[in-house]
Amino acid sequence: MTQVFPTPAAHAREILAKLGAPPLPADAGEPVRGPIDGAILGHVVYDDARQIEAKVAAACRAFADWRVVPAPRRGELVRLFGEELRAAKADLAALVTLEAGKIASEAAGEVQEMIDICDFAVGLSRQLHGLTIASERPGHAMRETWHPLGPVAVISAFNFPVAVWAWNACLALVCGDPVIWKPSEKTPLTALATQAILERALARFRDAPQGLSSVVLGARDAGERLARDPRIPLVSATGSTRMGRAVAPMVAERFGRSILELGGNNAMIVTPSADLSLALRAIVFSAAGTAGQRCTSLRRLIVHESLVDKVSDAVEAAFQRLSVGDPRDPKTLLGPLIDKAAYDAFIAAMNQVRAEGGSVAGGERVLIDEHPDAYYVRPALARLPAPAPCMQRETFAPLLHVVPYNSFDMAIAIQNDVPQGLSSCVMTNDVREAERFLAAAGSDCGIANVNIGPSGAEIGGAFGGEKETGGGRESGSDSWKQYMRRQTATVNYSGALPLAQGVRFDL
Amino acid sequence: MTQVFPTPAAHAREILAKLGAPPLPADAGEPVRGPIDGAILGHVVYDDARQIEAKVAAACRAFADWRVVPAPRRGELVRLFGEELRAAKADLAALVTLEAGKIASEAAGEVQEMIDICDFAVGLSRQLHGLTIASERPGHAMRETWHPLGPVAVISAFNFPVAVWAWNACLALVCGDPVIWKPSEKTPLTALATQAILERALARFRDAPQGLSSVVLGARDAGERLARDPRIPLVSATGSTRMGRAVAPMVAERFGRSILELGGNNAMIVTPSADLSLALRAIVFSAAGTAGQRCTSLRRLIVHESLVDKVSDAVEAAFQRLSVGDPRDPKTLLGPLIDKAAYDAFIAAMNQVRAEGGSVAGGERVLIDEHPDAYYVRPALARLPAPAPCMQRETFAPLLHVVPYNSFDMAIAIQNDVPQGLSSCVMTNDVREAERFLAAAGSDCGIANVNIGPSGAEIGGAFGGEKETGGGRESGSDSWKQYMRRQTATVNYSGALPLAQGVRFDL
Amino acid sequence: MTQVFPTPAAHAREILAKLGAPPLPADAGEPVRGPIDGAILGHVVYDDARQIEAKVAAACRAFADWRVVPAPRRGELVRLFGEELRAAKADLAALVTLEAGKIASEAAGEVQEMIDICDFAVGLSRQLHGLTIASERPGHAMRETWHPLGPVAVISAFNFPVAVWAWNACLALVCGDPVIWKPSEKTPLTALATQAILERALARFRDAPQGLSSVVLGARDAGERLARDPRIPLVSATGSTRMGRAVAPMVAERFGRSILELGGNNAMIVTPSADLSLALRAIVFSAAGTAGQRCTSLRRLIVHESLVDKVSDAVEAAFQRLSVGDPRDPKTLLGPLIDKAAYDAFIAAMNQVRAEGGSVAGGERVLIDEHPDAYYVRPALARLPAPAPCMQRETFAPLLHVVPYNSFDMAIAIQNDVPQGLSSCVMTNDVREAERFLAAAGSDCGIANVNIGPSGAEIGGAFGGEKETGGGRESGSDSWKQYMRRQTATVNYSGALPLAQGVRFDL
Amino acid sequence: MTQVFPTPAAHAREILAKLGAPPLPADAGEPVRGPIDGAILGHVVYDDARQIEAKVAAACRAFADWRVVPAPRRGELVRLFGEELRAAKADLAALVTLEAGKIASEAAGEVQEMIDICDFAVGLSRQLHGLTIASERPGHAMRETWHPLGPVAVISAFNFPVAVWAWNACLALVCGDPVIWKPSEKTPLTALATQAILERALARFRDAPQGLSSVVLGARDAGERLARDPRIPLVSATGSTRMGRAVAPMVAERFGRSILELGGNNAMIVTPSADLSLALRAIVFSAAGTAGQRCTSLRRLIVHESLVDKVSDAVEAAFQRLSVGDPRDPKTLLGPLIDKAAYDAFIAAMNQVRAEGGSVAGGERVLIDEHPDAYYVRPALARLPAPAPCMQRETFAPLLHVVPYNSFDMAIAIQNDVPQGLSSCVMTNDVREAERFLAAAGSDCGIANVNIGPSGAEIGGAFGGEKETGGGRESGSDSWKQYMRRQTATVNYSGALPLAQGVRFDL
Repeated sequence: MTQVFPTPAAHAREILAKLGAPPLPADAGEPVRGPIDGAILGHVVYDDARQIEAKVAAACRAFADWRVVPAPRRGELVRLFGEELRAAKADLAALVTLEAGKIASEAAGEVQEMIDICDFAVGLSRQLHGLTIASERPGHAMRETWHPLGPVAVISAFNFPVAVWAWNACLALVCGDPVIWKPSEKTPLTALATQAILERALARFRDAPQGLSSVVLGARDAGERLARDPRIPLVSATGSTRMGRAVAPMVAERFGRSILELGGNNAMIVTPSADLSLALRAIVFSAAGTAGQRCTSLRRLIVHESLVDKVSDAVEAAFQRLSVGDPRDPKTLLGPLIDKAAYDAFIAAMNQVRAEGGSVAGGERVLIDEHPDAYYVRPALARLPAPAPCMQRETFAPLLHVVPYNSFDMAIAIQNDVPQGLSSCVMTNDVREAERFLAAAGSDCGIANVNIGPSGAEIGGAFGGEKETGGGRESGSDSWKQYMRRQTATVNYSGALPLAQGVRFDL
Repeated sequence: MTQVFPTPAAHAREILAKLGAPPLPADAGEPVRGPIDGAILGHVVYDDARQIEAKVAAACRAFADWRVVPAPRRGELVRLFGEELRAAKADLAALVTLEAGKIASEAAGEVQEMIDICDFAVGLSRQLHGLTIASERPGHAMRETWHPLGPVAVISAFNFPVAVWAWNACLALVCGDPVIWKPSEKTPLTALATQAILERALARFRDAPQGLSSVVLGARDAGERLARDPRIPLVSATGSTRMGRAVAPMVAERFGRSILELGGNNAMIVTPSADLSLALRAIVFSAAGTAGQRCTSLRRLIVHESLVDKVSDAVEAAFQRLSVGDPRDPKTLLGPLIDKAAYDAFIAAMNQVRAEGGSVAGGERVLIDEHPDAYYVRPALARLPAPAPCMQRETFAPLLHVVPYNSFDMAIAIQNDVPQGLSSCVMTNDVREAERFLAAAGSDCGIANVNIGPSGAEIGGAFGGEKETGGGRESGSDSWKQYMRRQTATVNYSGALPLAQGVRFDL
Repeated sequence: MTQVFPTPAAHAREILAKLGAPPLPADAGEPVRGPIDGAILGHVVYDDARQIEAKVAAACRAFADWRVVPAPRRGELVRLFGEELRAAKADLAALVTLEAGKIASEAAGEVQEMIDICDFAVGLSRQLHGLTIASERPGHAMRETWHPLGPVAVISAFNFPVAVWAWNACLALVCGDPVIWKPSEKTPLTALATQAILERALARFRDAPQGLSSVVLGARDAGERLARDPRIPLVSATGSTRMGRAVAPMVAERFGRSILELGGNNAMIVTPSADLSLALRAIVFSAAGTAGQRCTSLRRLIVHESLVDKVSDAVEAAFQRLSVGDPRDPKTLLGPLIDKAAYDAFIAAMNQVRAEGGSVAGGERVLIDEHPDAYYVRPALARLPAPAPCMQRETFAPLLHVVPYNSFDMAIAIQNDVPQGLSSCVMTNDVREAERFLAAAGSDCGIANVNIGPSGAEIGGAFGGEKETGGGRESGSDSWKQYMRRQTATVNYSGALPLAQGVRFDL
Repeated sequence: MTQVFPTPAAHAREILAKLGAPPLPADAGEPVRGPIDGAILGHVVYDDARQIEAKVAAACRAFADWRVVPAPRRGELVRLFGEELRAAKADLAALVTLEAGKIASEAAGEVQEMIDICDFAVGLSRQLHGLTIASERPGHAMRETWHPLGPVAVISAFNFPVAVWAWNACLALVCGDPVIWKPSEKTPLTALATQAILERALARFRDAPQGLSSVVLGARDAGERLARDPRIPLVSATGSTRMGRAVAPMVAERFGRSILELGGNNAMIVTPSADLSLALRAIVFSAAGTAGQRCTSLRRLIVHESLVDKVSDAVEAAFQRLSVGDPRDPKTLLGPLIDKAAYDAFIAAMNQVRAEGGSVAGGERVLIDEHPDAYYVRPALARLPAPAPCMQRETFAPLLHVVPYNSFDMAIAIQNDVPQGLSSCVMTNDVREAERFLAAAGSDCGIANVNIGPSGAEIGGAFGGEKETGGGRESGSDSWKQYMRRQTATVNYSGALPLAQGVRFDL
């Protein structure tokens, strides 16, 4: 690395101050380590039970006021937030890089996604369309209206430390719901910075209720507390399948709603008709981008047997060429893993591949001397003769498994034969393959692409997946409905009292 | 009772034979008692674990075929089912009366609701509309499609023994999903009869896969088995809040979806501007109709203090006049309670009212001599000076609590201050009260009516409620979406590979 | 022809009697000739101005009643109509064959389309969804509702003598609108038969108003009278571009709405990746089926230069093999042209091709001896080296023009370079070509297919086209909205009077 | 008037310069007079035929590029335009006041409406939702997509000189369509200023095509030229019914689409249960606001006979108290009429009232000495014993007709008994009256309000009316669909060629 950067800790402190976040405690609280050098970026103090209770109670009070603010006016707050995000884009993106390790372009893309969802939510604020419905009874008007739901808890993961919250928060705010955010223990600083940016918008907006948005810092127990709280009708949780499996029943037991965005195990099918140059770029970006730490990262490559060696060789070569290093360096394409646990899981996964008969190329740790406490690795390509148990699990690291297929039906079967169901794609120029992949008997994932990698969704569509991915949908389409309650109303203006289905009950 | 009816058992056997249901076992299995006389209507044999497994496995196989049958063709099956139901309407309704104790008009209305949902589902079969969505990337087409989901388990309750299954099954079949039905232990015969009617449609349809629809007979453990089965992506369960609280986490833990239709505790507000004659009829029908055994039955009456005595007296008088008796008699408006447990709960609830300072009029058991093993009661009116704990619980019997209010805000607060959230209504001629009741800060129920009682929904709207009612929605609006999986697809036809949010990743 | 059929006239009379249509006048009125033998099928008496006035007035009176009948109840009428159509399917199809000359399978398909739209409309009858909309003003509820519009005039063409009316009528009836039908002068008998079938449904329905559906027989002036009548808010007219150009301003001048379904000039692009066997079948069916007399018939074939000879030869050979003859004979694939004028236009069009440098194969008149007054022809293939003026016009006959292309952009340009814009298709297995064809810069038609011919739309989609095709849409999607009026309503229940956009106007 | 304002001409010149509009020609061209003092604000040069041709041709070229720019990117242009409008709000509003005579608050409201529609259109830019549709054929995918339409001509009226264009232009731009604007001859300066503001956004956007938005200055013939141009698929015209009656057939004849926003004749019903204080404020604002020159201004007041004198007296008194004067003065509620022709029509209308037996209070011209060439009037109340011919016509001036009614049915009949159908309202606290007014047999207008006046629509709903109002809808709901063309696409990926409706055609 030729460019000289400030230490991550100093850099982070400077940005937080610039964005108006409250100063971090000098030395108390929990340390937050940055992945660039593994050093402590700062400390934060976790909320205790009383503080969480106060934030939930404040959100409940805020709800009583916010729900009757007209939705287009609520949209105005989100519009102002979008303006503030545009102004703070570079700073917030830089903090994302420091805390989550993303390269600059991806960090900027993440903040852009926050801005996009603001614009989208503002548009929604004059829609939130329910229905008028034809009634079978004369002199009756039937309609379905969507009303604000109540405080929404957002539990987010380190790998999209701000965008996923924004997807939820912007919709929730427009829908009339306060938001309580528990960020990952690994990325509290970006959460505090984001909240500070939102405070600017709140100040300009003037008359929003206190407690409309709050950040709860803490570990697993803080999340559980929110999941179990009956005053929180919706919990939107992003993270591992293990986390989701624990959270979902807690929420369900109290009749709350969950939006679960859990693990993916995303595949690409490469067919003989594919544009291989396009495919190669898509593979490398989606497998190695974000150091393989996207929930939509490519994990499994299913290549027609006639091409599997050629494609594998090309991917292996491209993996070798990728520049690994400080994510602040514009030349870097691959930043660090988030922490040692991630590195250990990476090593374990590669070992399992080998134990199950596969071979692994790449995956070496690099920059050890410069950063003994940080974990930079080369992406790894695991070649397997056929699908193996090691391919059933998601490992949050740049590890790509490749297997051959011989019929398109077999390729789809391999694609679907994992417990997760987030994202999937096919590289093909054949319209029949493309449409079969997108049809009822095709990919069983929530996201299915043709001639694009599995990652990089747009905010206009609904984001999320099936099976162990949890079934949640966020962002576009009608995802907003989850943040509201539906009411079916019938108004009888007839002066008579006919019953539906022709029932008679004459007194 | 002047009219002479056959014994319920003989009557039921005759209908089952006519509808082509398989003959009941002579004496083995579990007895099914009818509420009209408390005698055994027949016996059924419960499915054991192996049989349930076989039915689920058959449904999974059927799914593989059914999902690729074009939806309008699937609709044709449902259309034929509607024809068969029209032909069998009188018989099936009579069986509902025998097994669930509903009066003839309501039983006919329940079957009509099945027919209505058939017509509705047939229309949907050429819609099942997803979206095309504007993409931010040139040369990309984005769309959201709804695909069949998989086998659906329907757990139904005794009080709507056939209609609720039909709401689920007709949508599920059109959406491409097989259906496994576990009816209430109290009403297996109507389930068997309904399945027989569906078999007629299947025979005419010809090429539907085996196992597309099956009935699982059993008790709580059979339902649990279905709830825990990971091959069943959707469990639609109607019943008590207690049941829902048990089922929901079982399904959630395995990342299944639930549609929960649980307890209601439905209220009516009567304001000074109300048409009292209309209100009285609405009150009596919705509190005493179906012997108070609808999930949407009126349980709580919130009357302006200036009217509370007048309205209470009128309701009490009307309750006294209601004819109680054999539900097959066209003069009867109030049939029996379903069984002794229901009667005991009714008695207990009235006792609690008295213990909490209220007075109860009515509620006497009648026809004891004629039917010592059946439970016919007069509806009961419980007058309370203010909301009390006894009003927090749902009792499945004709027990109506009445309390006064003095401001409309207070009336809404009383309405909302229970854990359930199914149905609600206001009797008012004031448009401001009507609209406030239907607005964000008004009723917190899934159903909110003006100048209609809380019961008697039309199938064109979504049916279901919030809070402990479970949050599910069935029947109209876009309820069908729950029976399908959503897929967000993007097709890149550009030959280039731009990334969303302007991210750059140049190899 | 080996099979012996009754004379068309006797056959028609028998069917009309069976369907309960009023007896035709013995000899008075206008003669109706059948295309099978060119002989008179019967006579009909045209409505004069006074009779038309009476029918319009009756429709207006019917509207006042019908609009307040609940839509699901209106749907019940259409459901009954669907039942009657199912019962009369074979007879009505046979009459279509006799009067319009369609082969039996296509005639049955046309009646099936009527049945399908009934089912679809019944489903709509519980939807007719408007919107609830978020209001910017506190204490205001905004919604958009769709109300019945008024009497609808349907002007239909000979080539779909009953289905197009049904598309309009079933939606109109469900939407609350009476229907006045002016069928083509060439096909009044099928109209009278259809009205008779509807009368059966009306009789079963019981309480529909008089004048809800009527048939106006007459020529161009009758249509004009309806087009100019200000009491008819919607005129749905199918026919030639010339007719549409005359009708549209008449309706527009009085602020009526038109649905115009005018001429098509439909093309298919065959690309190198196409499945040629599939393409050949699609070409022959869509160019020669219905004797080229569908508005969606294939008229222009745009073939990659590498394939143009091969494809042309194959089409020419297939055209030669098609069996031409009495459309009642199940072996016949090509029935007669509708009349001599159609034949003359066919001859003239072929002559123009030759005059512009093209060559024509086929196009011979056949069966002259058997049917000197009927016009049976072989389909014609016109080969042109490049697009020519003769390809700008629609000729309602089995004449297919073929031209080569060398780039896909050029193929799309040829496809779009005609004044009509109804239907279009591409035969390709390349997903990039398929999606480009369907994208903003692709086909400019209302219908665009991939790997299907241009004809044979399903009723679930909206049918119609752009440019000189007239812009109308019928049948599926939200076509029903044209039969209703939209009302944007805001209810202020706040007690205050805030103005939108923050305007202040304080007295 | 105590406050001293610059002369309108100087004021206008200053604003135009500040907004960067091109300098007005010194003395050549057509004079533009301002209503404040009747003096010339400046001169403009009308486009001749060649210039109009050049602008249309440029729009066509721009379309070819703009239609393939992704819609969210097109939305970004509109977002930037919204930012520029926010910055220029005060200036543009001041120019509206100078050129159209609106009071400052209303002029600011008009610009706010432009800003609101920008926000709304930005949201749409990631939707523009078509449908995916269930196909009846196996292996077929059906969908409906909305594509850009082509250049849109906007013909706007003086009374909303900028907002109505913005409604059209923002949707059109997002939908992919260039815009050609012919403003009213009376208000070209605000058009030039608005175009200058848009140019700022275009400059920041960078890569929009030339000719995407242009202003055509001219009189009636310029509008006609656009109406007749077949390259302009959509003409959105706001103005008089007379204008619409001329334009509509011109567009229809060439198969173009029109959005017509023509005359209103808007009524309010005041029922016995109305909140009279609310009603009074609604009446005065909607009848006298904008000097009665809104298309939604209140023209007809239909009051229950028991209240008609009381309400009329109160309105008369309030009319007298309204401050009339320079619209720049914050104390002014009533600015000038637009010109002498408007004043003459006002006088003529009052004379007709008197000739038909009514009496008129108010209506005097004031400020004659200060502004001999401007037309300031007091609002006029015309009392009539019953509906009269004078009430059938719209006069663009503050003239309110009042008539009594005795039954609610009669009130609705009076409301509907005019040729126009734009806006309507009822002041009532009775939910039955409110809902009847909004139901199928209620108001026949495109806009129907309860407890609000007829004017002041929000942009989230569709704006427009029925009958002679022209049937167009602009702004919210799905109005955007008019700016796009709909395409029904079916992709066959099955390898087989089944036909719809079961048709067989086996070669």
